Amino acid sequence: MDLDQFFSRAARGLRESAIRRAGDVRAPDLVSLAPGFPDPDLFPWDECRAITQAVLTGADPSVLQYGPTRGYRPLLDLLPEVLADRGIGATPEETIITTGSQQALDLCGRVFADPGDCILVELPTYTGAITAFGNLGARLAGVRQDGEGIDLADLDEVWKRERDEGRRVPFVYVVPNFQNPTGVLMSLGRRRALLEWARSRRVLILEDDPYGVLYFEDAATSAETRPIKADDRDGLVIYASTFSKTVAPGLRVAWLTAPRPFIDKLEVAKQSADLCSGSLDQRIVHEMWTRGVLSARLPALRARYQRKRTALDVSLRAELGDTGTWALPKGGFFLWVRFPEAVDTEALLGRAIERGVVYVPGRAFFVERRGLNHARLSFSWPSEERLALGVRRLAAAVRAELARVAEQGAAGQGSEAVREVE
Amino acid sequence: MDLDQFFSRAARGLRESAIRRAGDVRAPDLVSLAPGFPDPDLFPWDECRAITQAVLTGADPSVLQYGPTRGYRPLLDLLPEVLADRGIGATPEETIITTGSQQALDLCGRVFADPGDCILVELPTYTGAITAFGNLGARLAGVRQDGEGIDLADLDEVWKRERDEGRRVPFVYVVPNFQNPTGVLMSLGRRRALLEWARSRRVLILEDDPYGVLYFEDAATSAETRPIKADDRDGLVIYASTFSKTVAPGLRVAWLTAPRPFIDKLEVAKQSADLCSGSLDQRIVHEMWTRGVLSARLPALRARYQRKRTALDVSLRAELGDTGTWALPKGGFFLWVRFPEAVDTEALLGRAIERGVVYVPGRAFFVERRGLNHARLSFSWPSEERLALGVRRLAAAVRAELARVAEQGAAGQGSEAVREVE
Repeated sequence: MDLDQFFSRAARGLRESAIRRAGDVRAPDLVSLAPGFPDPDLFPWDECRAITQAVLTGADPSVLQYGPTRGYRPLLDLLPEVLADRGIGATPEETIITTGSQQALDLCGRVFADPGDCILVELPTYTGAITAFGNLGARLAGVRQDGEGIDLADLDEVWKRERDEGRRVPFVYVVPNFQNPTGVLMSLGRRRALLEWARSRRVLILEDDPYGVLYFEDAATSAETRPIKADDRDGLVIYASTFSKTVAPGLRVAWLTAPRPFIDKLEVAKQSADLCSGSLDQRIVHEMWTRGVLSARLPALRARYQRKRTALDVSLRAELGDTGTWALPKGGFFLWVRFPEAVDTEALLGRAIERGVVYVPGRAFFVERRGLNHARLSFSWPSEERLALGVRRLAAAVRAELARVAEQGAAGQGSEAVREVE
Repeated sequence: MDLDQFFSRAARGLRESAIRRAGDVRAPDLVSLAPGFPDPDLFPWDECRAITQAVLTGADPSVLQYGPTRGYRPLLDLLPEVLADRGIGATPEETIITTGSQQALDLCGRVFADPGDCILVELPTYTGAITAFGNLGARLAGVRQDGEGIDLADLDEVWKRERDEGRRVPFVYVVPNFQNPTGVLMSLGRRRALLEWARSRRVLILEDDPYGVLYFEDAATSAETRPIKADDRDGLVIYASTFSKTVAPGLRVAWLTAPRPFIDKLEVAKQSADLCSGSLDQRIVHEMWTRGVLSARLPALRARYQRKRTALDVSLRAELGDTGTWALPKGGFFLWVRFPEAVDTEALLGRAIERGVVYVPGRAFFVERRGLNHARLSFSWPSEERLALGVRRLAAAVRAELARVAEQGAAGQGSEAVREVE
């Protein structure tokens, strides 16, 4: 029987995440610069063990029971503290726990966008957002960004174009702190201007902030990571953040903060998506906070990821300084490298994997066929030594590719046909 | 600013779960017969503590890391064993882990049904399915059931009607084992006939089986719970089950088993829904199985829930034997009681809560305005003493309601106006 007949139209159009695909590659001794995995050496193993010992006694049955859809109440009650540290004022009623940030994106897509509506995104942007919104049938329209963040003139132009073509534009999705994949830290001036634009155009801002607390002290300050939400007087900003990068992503605990009517609606959407997030996971995160583990860990996390960022940068300069260009990330997990036009990072990927290194090709972060000569390198997971090894392998692959291209060029016109066949 | 302008059309139509609403009621000394919560005294607390101690050492970083979307591989590898115990042959490639069964329903809705498609459901049926499918914009068409399960003549009639009206009908959703809310155990003959019908009409069966292993030995045998999936030769059955009832629901670990092309598509849908289910949760469940805890626990779970079922039945007979009617559940968590037509269980709910007992009104399980004189009573959570207390309170509320209705009847025609005003 032909099973394809049973799929919905939506299912036929489902798009896979390129990051997940690259992250799934397994080979002996492979250096993975692909997924944005935190360094497991930094997971709070001892504290996790102590907390589970303490809470899994049966004295509090709710630890393993179904929980409220909104989230474990004591965790909701302390989120205002977490948010206050970032300059955001919010009540527990203005927050909801999600099963990771990915669910936050999915729920926002469902609650604010119908199929055919247009969601504005930075170019390039996080693939998880592209798949979440795209798989709901939304149209994604890309907006240029520069070293200071999203380009407001282009934003307004794209918005006007989409509106003129008859589309509803419910929100613009941005990652202001150490953007995924570019690592860009949006300037404070740009943030203010974006908020002003949103107010004038009545477009919501979905602000995704997984990396804000992971700024690098040699290049940025906490003040520079101030979320747009902190200055949101009109309830136009939906703020998403997570404990995946500061505690551990295997505990699926993230959250959204937004005006209460939005949260109430997101809660109903979450009821039918998964009823509730993991009770034990939420309890562990709650204990991490109340025991002071979370705040105490942050300086060490910042320092360690900063060292890794430096190791990657040093290796890249040594191995690819004459070939690639990149901006030094001031925080987060990612470095965005640009190669000469001749290097197609999608075509290169297989050969890089053969040499023992994997990354995410730039195209994965664009909503159309662009970014072919870019790659996202994650420095969060491998050790400094492995980062150096990965870069040596990547450089060898890139050099071989450039030599191959040059050879084809020397061979004259015929080479183009060869290239197309590959 | 009017925030409602920002909601999608889908969001405006979102329907809340009546169970969640009833389950959220908090009052001192309230006996809750509403949510299908397992008894936390039966959670494997000691084993959970031992397992978390053993796995949270940091030796295996994957315990707290992002995991594959499909699920923790060793857990996928043992699901065929779990399934074989139920008569189902399946490979690990034919399974996917979901964040609870609710996510399984949501993903199936997305992958098989477009807005406007018709999904067939038993009447009454699980509210979580009603909200999951309904919130995706699917139309739900109810099919009669009797003491042996879904009525096949009515099924075919409803299917024809929907097809004639131009709708695609991708699947029929059933809970053959101790149905939620009726507790009905679908007969083996009815299961075979349903599978035959699905084959002839080319309609998929979504078989939801959270309770099958919790049969009561005084009334049913394991053989009688044989899933429809066990006899599925054509890949027409998508089988959903969960560890929520046999381990604990706070660990959000459920799964789907289906032909591989379906699972591949469901995986892509899950990527954009929540990337992956909780890694620690999956590890705990995996250890429960490999340590033999899970199988060893089942007889005790069956015996305990059977005793609770009996306690509820005995109390009901003593207190409401002359007023309500119900079938004795042969397994699972629920008893479905029918009151005289004059009793509107939705209108009664507030007064029952005042008397210290809460249940789920029957209407929540219907896709249109029916079931008003029914209620679902969950016997899984409260102790036997609390069940008895809850029934006494419920009986008092019902008697008061019947007295009120009789009095209104005696007062003559004028009473109807009074009733409407309330």
